[in-house]
Amino acid sequence: MKERLEKEIEGLEKVRAVTGGICAVSGVTANGIHCGLKPGGEPDLALFHSDTPLKTAGFYTKNKLLGAHIPVFRKTLHASRGNVRSLLVNSKIANCATGDRGEMDNLMVCSTLAGKLGIRPGQVLFASTGVIGKRLPVDTITDGLDGLTGGLSSEGGESAARAIMTTDTLPKSCAVEIQSENGAYRIAGVAKGSGMIFPDMATMFGFIFTDADILLPALRSVAKKCVNSTFNCISVDGDTSPNDTVLAMANGASGAKVRSKKEKDAFAGAMAAVMRYLSKELVRDGEGATKFVDIRIEGAAGRSDARAMAHSIANSQLVKTAIFGSDPNWGRIISAAAVSGAKFDPALAVLSIDGECVYDRGRLPDSTGEIMKNKDVCIVLDAGLGSAATSFWTCDLTYDYVKINAEYTT
Amino acid sequence: MKERLEKEIEGLEKVRAVTGGICAVSGVTANGIHCGLKPGGEPDLALFHSDTPLKTAGFYTKNKLLGAHIPVFRKTLHASRGNVRSLLVNSKIANCATGDRGEMDNLMVCSTLAGKLGIRPGQVLFASTGVIGKRLPVDTITDGLDGLTGGLSSEGGESAARAIMTTDTLPKSCAVEIQSENGAYRIAGVAKGSGMIFPDMATMFGFIFTDADILLPALRSVAKKCVNSTFNCISVDGDTSPNDTVLAMANGASGAKVRSKKEKDAFAGAMAAVMRYLSKELVRDGEGATKFVDIRIEGAAGRSDARAMAHSIANSQLVKTAIFGSDPNWGRIISAAAVSGAKFDPALAVLSIDGECVYDRGRLPDSTGEIMKNKDVCIVLDAGLGSAATSFWTCDLTYDYVKINAEYTT
Repeated sequence: MKERLEKEIEGLEKVRAVTGGICAVSGVTANGIHCGLKPGGEPDLALFHSDTPLKTAGFYTKNKLLGAHIPVFRKTLHASRGNVRSLLVNSKIANCATGDRGEMDNLMVCSTLAGKLGIRPGQVLFASTGVIGKRLPVDTITDGLDGLTGGLSSEGGESAARAIMTTDTLPKSCAVEIQSENGAYRIAGVAKGSGMIFPDMATMFGFIFTDADILLPALRSVAKKCVNSTFNCISVDGDTSPNDTVLAMANGASGAKVRSKKEKDAFAGAMAAVMRYLSKELVRDGEGATKFVDIRIEGAAGRSDARAMAHSIANSQLVKTAIFGSDPNWGRIISAAAVSGAKFDPALAVLSIDGECVYDRGRLPDSTGEIMKNKDVCIVLDAGLGSAATSFWTCDLTYDYVKINAEYTT
Repeated sequence: MKERLEKEIEGLEKVRAVTGGICAVSGVTANGIHCGLKPGGEPDLALFHSDTPLKTAGFYTKNKLLGAHIPVFRKTLHASRGNVRSLLVNSKIANCATGDRGEMDNLMVCSTLAGKLGIRPGQVLFASTGVIGKRLPVDTITDGLDGLTGGLSSEGGESAARAIMTTDTLPKSCAVEIQSENGAYRIAGVAKGSGMIFPDMATMFGFIFTDADILLPALRSVAKKCVNSTFNCISVDGDTSPNDTVLAMANGASGAKVRSKKEKDAFAGAMAAVMRYLSKELVRDGEGATKFVDIRIEGAAGRSDARAMAHSIANSQLVKTAIFGSDPNWGRIISAAAVSGAKFDPALAVLSIDGECVYDRGRLPDSTGEIMKNKDVCIVLDAGLGSAATSFWTCDLTYDYVKINAEYTT
């Protein structure tokens, strides 16, 4: 995984990968414990805590069904944007489709945790992920808070990253350090999600912490742009979860100011690399995935056309099963693009897979058939209509995807 | 299957099921043979032939990639709508993404067949289904035409229905007889398709023949309405094929005139029943399907909202795998509706599955959990916003779907 992070920061000046995950950021401690939500003792409750207040920008699912934490986050961040200190997360139960009662359950837990930490309830955010349509077991969670807060440490990033997992098979986190003229600062991220993954956003949490000293409007605008080109460019199964949340949180603990355009650009480049790395890790660990698929659309009439074609290819069960089977059935890719609603003319399109041209504007070049064999598959579709382009990442559709999702709640 | 057809014609006056498939229609003969496209000797070339000219209305896929036969059909039917005599169909190769060359291949076969039958090339339609992106083996097909035409008979419906199959496990056809004041006439249909099934239309052929004496504009308008409420209400995997084609063909051989509103209504009711039966059979035989899912949306703000929610639920991999696993994870259904783009408010919606209410406007009723256990699953979602409603049929997503599609061309 270190190698893949190195690849994402390639070409960025004065940026290097560092160890420690989320806790690589100054002033941030974390912990993950088992409070009793998951069977079998795996960690299911995570806490990320900052010694100093966190300026926080939040980005949420576009689903009209919302996990109870999302309206609560909106209110809390509106009231006290720069004052958050703690982020609590539980897995296994999404506290979603639980009506007003769900919001009250969320706030009760926030209030209890705030009491234990000696901060105000409005300084705590509490996010949930897991099964939709079950009440949150508030007592089980509050009973775990003493152990959780007692164990906060700068070594707790790994256990916290594990505690937010649902069907993920691996924890996902990374950290980078940026050398700026105002001193060094760090950006670290942790993410979860491996099913119900589709923009906007995915069933997904992405929490990005930084100790840079950046103002909230700049943090929000940089993070928004980064989210659009990373977390909003992945799909596992085309299902958009009601609980998806990305937070960008800055505590300024490094003292390194990010103010000028040049400083913001460097910050943005590093933040994008962190999010890109995490996004791709989500797809690689997609439910049942055996292959990583890089879809590049070129020559589209417009940006929305490029995205529509990428979405349609990434969500085609037929494309995804063909890739699983290493079956060079590329006609399904052209067909998926052609039905996407985007401007498309088969007589102008050129399709290449793994470097080999398989379809050239209505002609069928001699092909070796040696495509889709590797663990990484690269699809390049040139629509031949304009200059818009996009990248999108997805995985294959496998027996294990079906198995995982046929047995999720039972 | 007889029982299911009886159910579709329940309540229709003077309509009864008859045997014989397509050839139940006067003047229609058929045959299906193996010409060499499928490995293993299964039938792969079908012919449907009428003694007298067929008034023909055609309905096609909305995919921008088109099987070569579709532009040819459009031209042929435009030039000679009431004069078609023969419908030739091959399976295994879709003759799609083959450019202008594909249309020429199609016309060459039409011309050869017309010569053998002593009719004009413009009286022949030739449709293809199968793998996209491979040239049609014209010689293999024309070499089979003597055997195919020589064996035309009124017993050939079954072999023809088998010859148009791709991944279908069963042939699908049915016939009904209508007693009208002007005499008895029949409507019969044959269909294929079990993957790449999604409106509009599905990877699908639906060929409906009748010996009623009906004028072309009436035939077209009735058939269009029937297609919209049947073949356009099914999904197996959300992928729209480039070759989908429905034809409604009337040869008038029964002599029974269909002219008055009452006569047209009776005709429409019977045609809808035939198409509804075939549509549901397609879904029941969906690739890898073990369950049939009837999705009913009620109380939607508008018709397009109802359809958007139905599509989103029917295409959710998470919903479909949960149904496969009999996992009562109904939150995925609400979530799919909420992300469909339709007007939706979780605080107003009520969800029932197999007769049991599982979600009631934010409240979670005590549920037995005894849902999704049967072979037929019925989902009723009342959006609580208006009076628009729709029905939609789909199947579950299973290991076998993945298996079939991971190994399709290889």
